[in-house]
Amino acid sequence: MMKDIVVKVGKMSNNEEKIVTAAAIVIGNEILSGRTQDTNSNWIAKELTRYGIRLIEVRVIPDIEETIVDTLNELRTKVNYVFTTGGIGPTHDDITAACVAKAFGVELERNQEAHEILENHYGDDLTEARDSMAIMPVGVKLIENPVSAAPGFVLDNVHVMAGIPNIMKVMLDAVLNNLELGTPLLSNTITCTIPESEISEELSSIQDTYPDVEIGSYPNFRGGKTGLSVVLRSSNEDLLKKSTKDVIALIEKMGEAPSAMSLQAAV
Amino acid sequence: MMKDIVVKVGKMSNNEEKIVTAAAIVIGNEILSGRTQDTNSNWIAKELTRYGIRLIEVRVIPDIEETIVDTLNELRTKVNYVFTTGGIGPTHDDITAACVAKAFGVELERNQEAHEILENHYGDDLTEARDSMAIMPVGVKLIENPVSAAPGFVLDNVHVMAGIPNIMKVMLDAVLNNLELGTPLLSNTITCTIPESEISEELSSIQDTYPDVEIGSYPNFRGGKTGLSVVLRSSNEDLLKKSTKDVIALIEKMGEAPSAMSLQAAV
Repeated sequence: MMKDIVVKVGKMSNNEEKIVTAAAIVIGNEILSGRTQDTNSNWIAKELTRYGIRLIEVRVIPDIEETIVDTLNELRTKVNYVFTTGGIGPTHDDITAACVAKAFGVELERNQEAHEILENHYGDDLTEARDSMAIMPVGVKLIENPVSAAPGFVLDNVHVMAGIPNIMKVMLDAVLNNLELGTPLLSNTITCTIPESEISEELSSIQDTYPDVEIGSYPNFRGGKTGLSVVLRSSNEDLLKKSTKDVIALIEKMGEAPSAMSLQAAV
Repeated sequence: MMKDIVVKVGKMSNNEEKIVTAAAIVIGNEILSGRTQDTNSNWIAKELTRYGIRLIEVRVIPDIEETIVDTLNELRTKVNYVFTTGGIGPTHDDITAACVAKAFGVELERNQEAHEILENHYGDDLTEARDSMAIMPVGVKLIENPVSAAPGFVLDNVHVMAGIPNIMKVMLDAVLNNLELGTPLLSNTITCTIPESEISEELSSIQDTYPDVEIGSYPNFRGGKTGLSVVLRSSNEDLLKKSTKDVIALIEKMGEAPSAMSLQAAV
């Protein structure tokens, strides 16, 4: 039940940056058909960013065993943490647990702790289908689900969560405190109405000056008006401040009063 | 400018199903940091489904050259069509065109047609940064952009589109009619309030009876109430009708009047 909360803070004594990476796997035909707009990966992205963990890839894949197994095996060796959403309910298309077992080459079993949780929750209504949600790979730790009882699980660095957003959120909450944290990325966002192409050359030169700051520019067209957000991200607060000052000076030089959001955890 | 509209209808004379596949690559650090909720892939998914093209994977990846090149090369050989969004603006972090050139092993050039479009649009305001949006791989066809002029492009089976949703949408519109269409998936959605676990065993047996119909069940918890949508998808209208009847009969047998949506293009 992940009761042992171990918070490992991402700061290194020698001020060295500590990079912790993650990938999210969104499992479900309903996302790929367009029926459902995935919002889980955006939630996961924001939460991980807050915790200093860098989401480096999201994959949306169908309910096909081979695809799920291959994707798990590719990503779990590439990043520190993998998070999956979807495919852990009681129906025939819920094959995530079986795929995780296959990916790790371990057996499936009826997890006794999960079975007891379901028994407590459903009592006499514990059908075979419901109890199938306790079938998990050997060796997992459970992830608590206060919303609808059926737990998720962790095997090695793979975190298997529900697809329903409000259940996924409580499951992610339950696991985040057990993860090793990285140095948080900090960010500043500066908005203006200067067209991206008029500022791009000088932004590029600011980027060259600060290779350890990631500078992105995101134009938008709303109500016929052009807007631009310049987002600066870095785990080094000092460099972030300096580069932000340079961007503000640049925008002012172009005759506009930029609207700058203050230093914050990156999102 | 893709003026030659060639509609290839997906129906085969011998009633054989024609599978056409696609993958979407969403390029941008702002999606992975959680700053921006990606809605492009959901739009692409719905449009492709309408056209009988099956989106089999979505990847969200950062603005890193190696990752973009590798992802392009993996997916373009795996599916019929690849769609990318993001990274084609005028700033230093817009590296998609260069990555596509590298993936295909072709040179970058100033595309004359794209340059003229930008010249017509910007006139004397055509800065070097803006003109950089005409730098494209050798051998592309342009994708028209009536919103903000700067075109996208197609190279072989890779369709490179803007990341800004309203521009992406007009670009997708411009290319969809040039694609080879597959046999459209049809779908029926039936909603009820029966808990998923109480219906899962019999749904599974209906699935076994109709291996050519994809049956998914999607529970939801809204306002404290449990709801269930059963979605049946098939390119075979007859099998879809029969399996839908079976699901409706099952729900009625369980004492509920199902709310069935009529036969429609799948989403």
